[in-house]
Amino acid sequence: MANNTITAPKGFLAAGLHCGVKKSGKSDLALLACPAGAKAAAVFTTNKVVSAAVQVCKKHVKSASISAVVVNSGNANTCTGKRGLANAVKMCAETAKRIEIDPHNVLIASTGIIGEQLPIKKITSGILKAAAKLSASSKAGLDFAKAIMTTDTRPKQAVRRLEISGAKVTIAGAVKGAGMIAPNMATTLCFITTDVAITKPLLAKALKSAIGNSLNRLTVDGHQSTNDTAIILASGLAGNAERIGIVSQCPRYKRFANALAEVCDDLARQMALDAEGATRMFKVVVKGAATKADAAKACRAIADYPLVKCAVNGGDPNWGRIICAVGSAGVKLNPNKLACKLGPITVFKNGTPRKFDKKKASKVVSQTEHTITVDLGVGMASDFCYGCDLSKGYITINADYHT
Amino acid sequence: MANNTITAPKGFLAAGLHCGVKKSGKSDLALLACPAGAKAAAVFTTNKVVSAAVQVCKKHVKSASISAVVVNSGNANTCTGKRGLANAVKMCAETAKRIEIDPHNVLIASTGIIGEQLPIKKITSGILKAAAKLSASSKAGLDFAKAIMTTDTRPKQAVRRLEISGAKVTIAGAVKGAGMIAPNMATTLCFITTDVAITKPLLAKALKSAIGNSLNRLTVDGHQSTNDTAIILASGLAGNAERIGIVSQCPRYKRFANALAEVCDDLARQMALDAEGATRMFKVVVKGAATKADAAKACRAIADYPLVKCAVNGGDPNWGRIICAVGSAGVKLNPNKLACKLGPITVFKNGTPRKFDKKKASKVVSQTEHTITVDLGVGMASDFCYGCDLSKGYITINADYHT
Repeated sequence: MANNTITAPKGFLAAGLHCGVKKSGKSDLALLACPAGAKAAAVFTTNKVVSAAVQVCKKHVKSASISAVVVNSGNANTCTGKRGLANAVKMCAETAKRIEIDPHNVLIASTGIIGEQLPIKKITSGILKAAAKLSASSKAGLDFAKAIMTTDTRPKQAVRRLEISGAKVTIAGAVKGAGMIAPNMATTLCFITTDVAITKPLLAKALKSAIGNSLNRLTVDGHQSTNDTAIILASGLAGNAERIGIVSQCPRYKRFANALAEVCDDLARQMALDAEGATRMFKVVVKGAATKADAAKACRAIADYPLVKCAVNGGDPNWGRIICAVGSAGVKLNPNKLACKLGPITVFKNGTPRKFDKKKASKVVSQTEHTITVDLGVGMASDFCYGCDLSKGYITINADYHT
Repeated sequence: MANNTITAPKGFLAAGLHCGVKKSGKSDLALLACPAGAKAAAVFTTNKVVSAAVQVCKKHVKSASISAVVVNSGNANTCTGKRGLANAVKMCAETAKRIEIDPHNVLIASTGIIGEQLPIKKITSGILKAAAKLSASSKAGLDFAKAIMTTDTRPKQAVRRLEISGAKVTIAGAVKGAGMIAPNMATTLCFITTDVAITKPLLAKALKSAIGNSLNRLTVDGHQSTNDTAIILASGLAGNAERIGIVSQCPRYKRFANALAEVCDDLARQMALDAEGATRMFKVVVKGAATKADAAKACRAIADYPLVKCAVNGGDPNWGRIICAVGSAGVKLNPNKLACKLGPITVFKNGTPRKFDKKKASKVVSQTEHTITVDLGVGMASDFCYGCDLSKGYITINADYHT
């Protein structure tokens, strides 16, 4: 069977195991290595309070070559002061020591509870074990994807294969959800590997664009986490002409960028469907807006509105809640031209309700994925985002079990 | 027993009954009358999509004298186009006819499902019956408070009595919750009666200030409804010197304004505790902010964050979620001076977690009301707001039952 994990591209090894951060006994330490060294790019949360891991990673990603990524789950290492920062530095140093590289060539990410110090001895022991287990097998890739999970119910991975200049290129990604997710520059933890040969600036450009149209369009509960990080490593071992796309107009670059965008879109949809308590997802399209920013704001207001999310959970075509969210979003609109569609069904047009088959509409809303379309009736701009329903499962996960 | 309903101030009659809008058979039509005529002031939703009732009420409230307020629950008369507007006008005309006044002297409010036309015949029949039932009894006041309810589990009323220049003045209010609530200019439907003699501009000033520090500080699910209306009627029959406070610095005006603020604060707390599915409420205080606007923004980000609301529901002192919300609120803050308290317990200070008794903190969070305090560490400005927990009950109300 084909390897569809992050070890699929040439040059990558991975490992994942339980080192003792999570009381549940589930995997909580993940290691990714590229012994030959990779070009790297990353995007980070714009939350003003950031994890020690993010602070360290932002520095290290500037290195010309990255050889490893170390990730722990179960503890965010955020709001942990100087001791937390020292622990993040130590995680990189320990990883560097085991793989015999410089600590600046190690990237790092953490996810989990905020405000508690890392059990650093457990983690350094874990790094030692993980380094010894590093493998290019698909099992190792899956272990990595499992070890980055928190409240996710399943690992989320995606892969795309394409040819560039006759060389076979692979792009693979693993992502973790599932709460504290909202669009802005980066979302949650996302690790992408590829064997394409590409310049560092173009790799960064392709990542930013792909995340911007995928993970950044997803909102689960309206707030960006303190730890959001998306990292891409390119080993350059695919054998394509060393520098695809010196310029971004190059068709070879575009093919790579499109494939990367597909990987990220795939991951974003998997995240929406595995969001905390989610039973279904939806896409919001807002058109007829005065500006792109207005369209984005309206999309987000709809997708984040608890009453809309509950209606989707109940398969209820209660479109009035959608219009209420749009009206209070602070965007320009014409109440007399306002329109709304649930899937293909027009329920509201020119500010007047349309008669529609409620059973049919309920079926649309009850699908695994449907599209809500709103026309603001004032301009030509549009935008979209992804959301998911709000269920009792979300409350169970976030209220019933204590930290 | 003292009358503590909106018929307590001199000069007011009320009625409430079931006219057939709600399938449940619960009361859905409320009428308030002031035969001698009252000075009136109101604040309305700033949602860009507004009910036909709001459109009509905004015009009528400019009248020098108001003699009646008609309210229906179970149908918002919003997104209903020209027919909806004609129905709102008809509701006022029908009320005016029954009380023998001019339609412009009638105020109107609606609440309920958005996007469906009013069953206007049922409502006009209801108005006829309600007009015949008008009474100054406390039962009639309670009937009114019940008839404005939607998903509220109990009527919410408040009363304050004070002396102004030797005259006994009464202020009474009734409010309905319980979803689609967020602070901005006005919140939900709120009706206040008083017998004070006061000028129209000062009445408006006192209402705006009282609502601004009470109902406008409450957020249940982050979006302002399309129908929010707060109305105050002053009959002037208390017998105080006809014009208390020609100027707002007048101490008699201040005493009235403070008592009105108390009524509104009382109603806001009742609303928080009777919000959809709510089991407890909390107050958020943000201080050390660069500006008042930043403080308000941070308050709202915390109170609206589903993860914070779930933590409160679970009695979980998971303060990291509070800091995450603040960090992503887009306000100026100093991560190294950031601090957080749950009730009296400091859990985070100078960007570093404090050791604290988790059982004690859990007890604080499990109270009917507790205060979350955050210091942004950059300035002197502060603000506050009220929020409530997010429970499975909210999902039951908003997802399990179809519209």
